[in-house]
Amino acid sequence: MKVLIQDVAVITANRKNEVLSHADVVITNDKISYVGPTKAWQAEFNEVIDGRGKLVTPGFVNAHGHAAMSLLRSYADDMPLMQWLEKRIWPVEARLQPEDVYWGTLLAIAEMLKGGTTTFTDMYFYMDQVARAAARAGIRAVLSRGLVGVGNEAKSGLQENKEFVRQWHGRADGRITTMLGPHAPYTCPPAYLREVLAVQAELEVPLHIHLAETMDETDQIMAEYGVSPTKLLLEAGVLDCPVLAAHCVHLSAEDMDILQEKHVHVAHNPGSNLKLGSGIAPVPELLSRGITVGLGTDSAASNNNLDMLEEMRLAALLHKGSRMDPTLITAEEAVAMATRESAAAVFLPDVGSIEEGKKADLLLWDLRQPHLTPKHNLVAHLVYAAQPSDIKMVMVNGTIVCRNGRLTLMDEDEIIFEAEQRARRLVGIA
Amino acid sequence: MKVLIQDVAVITANRKNEVLSHADVVITNDKISYVGPTKAWQAEFNEVIDGRGKLVTPGFVNAHGHAAMSLLRSYADDMPLMQWLEKRIWPVEARLQPEDVYWGTLLAIAEMLKGGTTTFTDMYFYMDQVARAAARAGIRAVLSRGLVGVGNEAKSGLQENKEFVRQWHGRADGRITTMLGPHAPYTCPPAYLREVLAVQAELEVPLHIHLAETMDETDQIMAEYGVSPTKLLLEAGVLDCPVLAAHCVHLSAEDMDILQEKHVHVAHNPGSNLKLGSGIAPVPELLSRGITVGLGTDSAASNNNLDMLEEMRLAALLHKGSRMDPTLITAEEAVAMATRESAAAVFLPDVGSIEEGKKADLLLWDLRQPHLTPKHNLVAHLVYAAQPSDIKMVMVNGTIVCRNGRLTLMDEDEIIFEAEQRARRLVGIA
Repeated sequence: MKVLIQDVAVITANRKNEVLSHADVVITNDKISYVGPTKAWQAEFNEVIDGRGKLVTPGFVNAHGHAAMSLLRSYADDMPLMQWLEKRIWPVEARLQPEDVYWGTLLAIAEMLKGGTTTFTDMYFYMDQVARAAARAGIRAVLSRGLVGVGNEAKSGLQENKEFVRQWHGRADGRITTMLGPHAPYTCPPAYLREVLAVQAELEVPLHIHLAETMDETDQIMAEYGVSPTKLLLEAGVLDCPVLAAHCVHLSAEDMDILQEKHVHVAHNPGSNLKLGSGIAPVPELLSRGITVGLGTDSAASNNNLDMLEEMRLAALLHKGSRMDPTLITAEEAVAMATRESAAAVFLPDVGSIEEGKKADLLLWDLRQPHLTPKHNLVAHLVYAAQPSDIKMVMVNGTIVCRNGRLTLMDEDEIIFEAEQRARRLVGIA
Repeated sequence: MKVLIQDVAVITANRKNEVLSHADVVITNDKISYVGPTKAWQAEFNEVIDGRGKLVTPGFVNAHGHAAMSLLRSYADDMPLMQWLEKRIWPVEARLQPEDVYWGTLLAIAEMLKGGTTTFTDMYFYMDQVARAAARAGIRAVLSRGLVGVGNEAKSGLQENKEFVRQWHGRADGRITTMLGPHAPYTCPPAYLREVLAVQAELEVPLHIHLAETMDETDQIMAEYGVSPTKLLLEAGVLDCPVLAAHCVHLSAEDMDILQEKHVHVAHNPGSNLKLGSGIAPVPELLSRGITVGLGTDSAASNNNLDMLEEMRLAALLHKGSRMDPTLITAEEAVAMATRESAAAVFLPDVGSIEEGKKADLLLWDLRQPHLTPKHNLVAHLVYAAQPSDIKMVMVNGTIVCRNGRLTLMDEDEIIFEAEQRARRLVGIA
């Protein structure tokens, strides 16, 4: 397969944040094989796409979420976190069957692909079903079994995660990679974390963990252990492994120094942190320390969408407004965070930018829209004005998975029907 | 003209915030003539729309903006406010010609209609051109000439605003109403405000003013007059008139008491306030005082879009996150703010809800989308998950002005072409 996109604008999201006005982009099989000036090509192409009036960007990399929870979108809103979890979310999750997770994940993937997300990162259970959905849907996925170190699933969950890594890591043409998923410091005591670390030493996959999401978590860990959640992980040896830490809202300067020192990657989830009233993560300080910060949606139960454009916009707006400093998190930084830095955060170094040799995970945007006129600055447009429906083509691993808003590998109506039926059963409607 | 939308879900945004699951909505000429249970109709209709799988909501009312500044979208971003104004915005605005304002406003209206905004509120100059654009485009508009009380336009601007009110108030089938637009306390000294009040007494239209947008403004007024901007307006007698005050970010408890006491209406502009680093308005406190708070986008030069869905979402998320309280500004309150309360804020009591006798300004949404599945709660979906492209039909004053994403009364390609050319000339590109 060889595809040429001719005479197109490109936001490369490479290390220099280069933007090209009239470029050609060539995709050969699963990789980008050329990005540069327009030229007269002699080669044969399976498809040539006219790029005039259009824009190529990397696909978005969603660095943290729980896809199947899309079945609980708008099921419980505007209420305190513990009430949300205990009265609404957990009782329904207890009823989830493996096929529910499969269809819930497909629903999430359908939304994500249409919104330009080409990689998603997931921590949940029945992960075989999540992997099966990702394999079928053509999306790239970084998957971990969520592990809770107390109760009767502590041992079996870890065993499942181990088998899951062995079975799925590198599958689906390399689109699926895996992690271990110790849920959080407050659900995984140090002794359990050490069991997880023993498995990590054997399998050598990274860890995915929630960290310092709420003030309550920080207070609770401090009361129980006399240290911050970050320091607790440090002392347990967790931060000697490659780690993706989601949220990181409530961090002291010392915590941030630890994250920097240990090269911990952070997934910033501005939408979910706002909606659940968790707070605003200190992203400017993380970035100024050179910490790798990606962007995530968290689940549609707490967001209530999986739109990375929105997360990118929130990441650019929120810190400016809450600190009263309009120079914080530029549009360029926000684009990098949603693409290249997110890919780095989830340990995919060959994803996240439009560069020769990188995986062909990319989006084609139609710029001929009132809300993208006039074209003074395409990077600012992407961050502050673009809409999901401006995306005309989504490619993952060299395959076109969405064209003109329609999924090419999946039947969207079937997914919507199945998800609706299953959601109704889960919440107890007929 | 008589239109029936049959068997449709309705978010009424009436005072009880009622949501109907299977309703009929009838539009007769410019008004909603029936909202209630589905029934067998004997009447003849010009059009019958199948509402199954769809949702009717009121159109959005954008309570504050400067439409023609869409020509400067993404022209200057992520920089300090005064640098943004003095180096970038003002030099270009000085080159604006009347026809630029006309086409810039049409560009803004095209974006707004496609995004479900059926009324916009504007403060700018060459307002004849803004009114001409609104009349042609079929949108409802609340218009004021921006008045600066220092320099050589102080007198002529007020004279223009006076003539503008006389010429345009109630025109275009009543779609256009007018206001006087003293720009802000820091640009309109008390003596000038008293001149504006004399004209107000004669014309009896409300005032539209920026108030307490930035900390700098508050500091400057305090240094010059020894009182807050709000108290300055009170002492000048401004608040004895009907007033729409935009922004209201930096208010003391005493200021809020004054706004409550004087029944001042507020336009909350969360996106612009974030992007310019102005801060976060104390909306929960305003609402708990019973103050009428509507929502606005401000201009696309500082936003950089005119998407009221985004403002509604920000209004619901921002206060939760920055105060760490997920119960602040519920989805229901956010919908009201973008529709009924915004309409009240801009002095249009017969607009902003789906009720018999109200103006037929409404939207039809297609709910068959992955990101709107499953349908646990339509109000939460609208606030937290919907996208502009979900809107399949936009009606203003009983006329369908947008259908399946295409404007019916305007040539979108022509607007994009004209706006692009004019913007390039304004910023000095050939």
